[in-house]
Amino acid sequence: MIKNLINFGFAGRIYPINPSYSETLGMTAYPDVRQVNDSIDMAIVITPSPIVPKVIKECAQKGIKAAIIISDGFAEADEEGMRLQKEIVEISHQTGIRLIGPNTIGVVDTANNLVTTPYFTGYSKIREGTIVYAAQTGIAGAQALPLEDYAYPISKMCDFGNKCDINEVDLLEYLATDSETKVIAMHLEDIKDGRQFLNVARKVIPNKPVLVLKPGRNEASTNAMSSHTGSLAGDDKVYNGAFKQAGVIRLDTWRELLEIPRVFVSQPLPSGNRLGIVTMTGGAGIMIIDAAVESGLTIAQLSPPTIDKLADISPRIVSNPVDIGQVWTLINSYIPTLEPAIAAVLADKSVDCVAIVVWASTMPQVPEITEMFYRLKQQFSKPMTIWIYGTNLAVAEELSRELEAIGLPTYSNLETAIKALGVAAKYAQIRSRFNAEPIT
Amino acid sequence: MIKNLINFGFAGRIYPINPSYSETLGMTAYPDVRQVNDSIDMAIVITPSPIVPKVIKECAQKGIKAAIIISDGFAEADEEGMRLQKEIVEISHQTGIRLIGPNTIGVVDTANNLVTTPYFTGYSKIREGTIVYAAQTGIAGAQALPLEDYAYPISKMCDFGNKCDINEVDLLEYLATDSETKVIAMHLEDIKDGRQFLNVARKVIPNKPVLVLKPGRNEASTNAMSSHTGSLAGDDKVYNGAFKQAGVIRLDTWRELLEIPRVFVSQPLPSGNRLGIVTMTGGAGIMIIDAAVESGLTIAQLSPPTIDKLADISPRIVSNPVDIGQVWTLINSYIPTLEPAIAAVLADKSVDCVAIVVWASTMPQVPEITEMFYRLKQQFSKPMTIWIYGTNLAVAEELSRELEAIGLPTYSNLETAIKALGVAAKYAQIRSRFNAEPIT
Repeated sequence: MIKNLINFGFAGRIYPINPSYSETLGMTAYPDVRQVNDSIDMAIVITPSPIVPKVIKECAQKGIKAAIIISDGFAEADEEGMRLQKEIVEISHQTGIRLIGPNTIGVVDTANNLVTTPYFTGYSKIREGTIVYAAQTGIAGAQALPLEDYAYPISKMCDFGNKCDINEVDLLEYLATDSETKVIAMHLEDIKDGRQFLNVARKVIPNKPVLVLKPGRNEASTNAMSSHTGSLAGDDKVYNGAFKQAGVIRLDTWRELLEIPRVFVSQPLPSGNRLGIVTMTGGAGIMIIDAAVESGLTIAQLSPPTIDKLADISPRIVSNPVDIGQVWTLINSYIPTLEPAIAAVLADKSVDCVAIVVWASTMPQVPEITEMFYRLKQQFSKPMTIWIYGTNLAVAEELSRELEAIGLPTYSNLETAIKALGVAAKYAQIRSRFNAEPIT
Repeated sequence: MIKNLINFGFAGRIYPINPSYSETLGMTAYPDVRQVNDSIDMAIVITPSPIVPKVIKECAQKGIKAAIIISDGFAEADEEGMRLQKEIVEISHQTGIRLIGPNTIGVVDTANNLVTTPYFTGYSKIREGTIVYAAQTGIAGAQALPLEDYAYPISKMCDFGNKCDINEVDLLEYLATDSETKVIAMHLEDIKDGRQFLNVARKVIPNKPVLVLKPGRNEASTNAMSSHTGSLAGDDKVYNGAFKQAGVIRLDTWRELLEIPRVFVSQPLPSGNRLGIVTMTGGAGIMIIDAAVESGLTIAQLSPPTIDKLADISPRIVSNPVDIGQVWTLINSYIPTLEPAIAAVLADKSVDCVAIVVWASTMPQVPEITEMFYRLKQQFSKPMTIWIYGTNLAVAEELSRELEAIGLPTYSNLETAIKALGVAAKYAQIRSRFNAEPIT
């Protein structure tokens, strides 16, 4: 954990506490937190569970206001663990020390380079940004995701673990006024207090979308959750109804939770749900329509001036999806065809958002395509998502990083690229329900 | 096209035909196919559409039995294209020359290194294997997929294009007895003759699974398909019913079509639908249960001997999902825990198939994990799929390639890893309906 903090660039003072050592990584180790001659803001606790209550008590005595309990062996484990968890909750109530966890990998904050995971992270610094990932599982942690490879712009990450004290409601309340956060993505196995969650969510949602992956869609998974994080989940239909009422958008898969938030980071909200499609393969165009309709989008009817512009490129590409594949066969470089086609669709007033399918298979294509999108992004501010396909994974990943860097969201699944726009359009609609001012 | 054929290792004789050149790539170019002084097995045609009928006639006169028409500008384009397509179909009927396309990138055959795409492919050779990809779109082509990076084991690929002559029924009939093919994955925008398709599919399915991605789930996409490949699609519900009756398994997304077939290449069929789960993160375990139940699997009840074996590792991992994450926190290497846990679940007679979630973030882990799976694969022949997560994409991709190489299917989406097992179990059930002999 200390190594991770240092590699991550955490600039605060760190005091290792361990009665068995007098030194670690060149720092003095203290047998007891109360012996540290400095005020301490937060403790990260990773002792065996039976001694956690003692440690938390000592932290409270030292005047520490918050602790993250990485240790497991609490309510998720057994009867004794349940008892231990109750004990630390009582200490929290009595002393006012607030707790994240137990059974958590803790938090990441890119604003002050704080990372609390004890696992190998593999990078020095996550890209600072505006997405919050919060989860009730370690797989939303800094040790689990290729955040550096994807250059995901992260504001904060939080693993709630067993949520013995701080939970999704506290985090939402905090994030409501956090200027570094633009979009909140949460994995929740349960919600501790439904009414409170909905009340807070309603306050946050006019300003920031809240996207939730809520597993437990059937009896088998609901039962398993109780042993994972010691929590009791309610009826899935109840969750669905409540989310809908509050304007929380429910996602279906882990990859959606990982990838969809990015559409809110760099793209403006669509002013409606009419989708324009520019593709280099007709087959993908059709699949996009299926995914679009299932995501609540409609297929835009291109306006006459757009049709004229497209007809100037080729009379064969005058309808939506605009399938460049049809006129691309015999040319070496497709950008002179693709760029005006995308521009025409982006300029169309009957189009609210645009999905683009682009083929790339060689490294020299990466700067060419990036420059094309850069020019388009200078001219238009309509939301778009991009799906890249081709023969070479390294090329696709490099292009993806380059496009992310200029503020365009790319997706590894065709369907997720479309659902991202559908979710953005749905959020725009939810906001208007709250009569919210446009986000600037 | 000629460059692709050469790079791909095609050993047959190639005769370029073009009236404007006398030589290309050091080969003599002929103005007319009839002037070639050799017998020719197949023609690849990529002239402008108006002269395709003349070219096909000449091919037929030369005694060529098959032509792949790459050119577009036929039924998918306009009235004139429709007329041209009718004309080539008539020539085919009159002369017996069989046609793939038009508007296609043609075929790949790894057995004789044949590739007919005119696009950049980016590799010298696709890995020879037993999967057939057939599609009515270029995105299932050799120029569109990272087949080398994924080391996908390909038997044949076929883009039907406009399907003016050879279609999915012909291909299925051919593949029924093709010893190089174990699984058939098809993207179909329509089916030309439903009754014929079902009759042929019924013959193939007892021996080889047929997986179909059939876009056109709504009116908008159905309409768009008619301009993509000039075909008329019927009611989606009719397709669903017919597929079910014939035992064709319908997939939902492009990535499923790409990734699910691999489970049939290397894994035995499950003898039932009871899923065992071994995971390094409890959160993924719960998501797997959701995906499993939705894919028709049930969560296996571990038998007493298995529970004993797991309790020997740790009393905390005695139920399914077996969550190693709970006992992994404080150890450096997890393999001594993970390996016996996977072995215990694989050995359990109440478990028909196993989903494994494995964390890898450093290159040195790749051989360690690969060796662990190699040992497990030597001992057990139960079907399994693997989802890899971690901080580093390159590590995950390298591990994925290594595991594929030893015959284990890995998946980039958690949900697809589970659905692959669900589809395998469903196919096993379909086969038993046909009273088929076990595949050996």
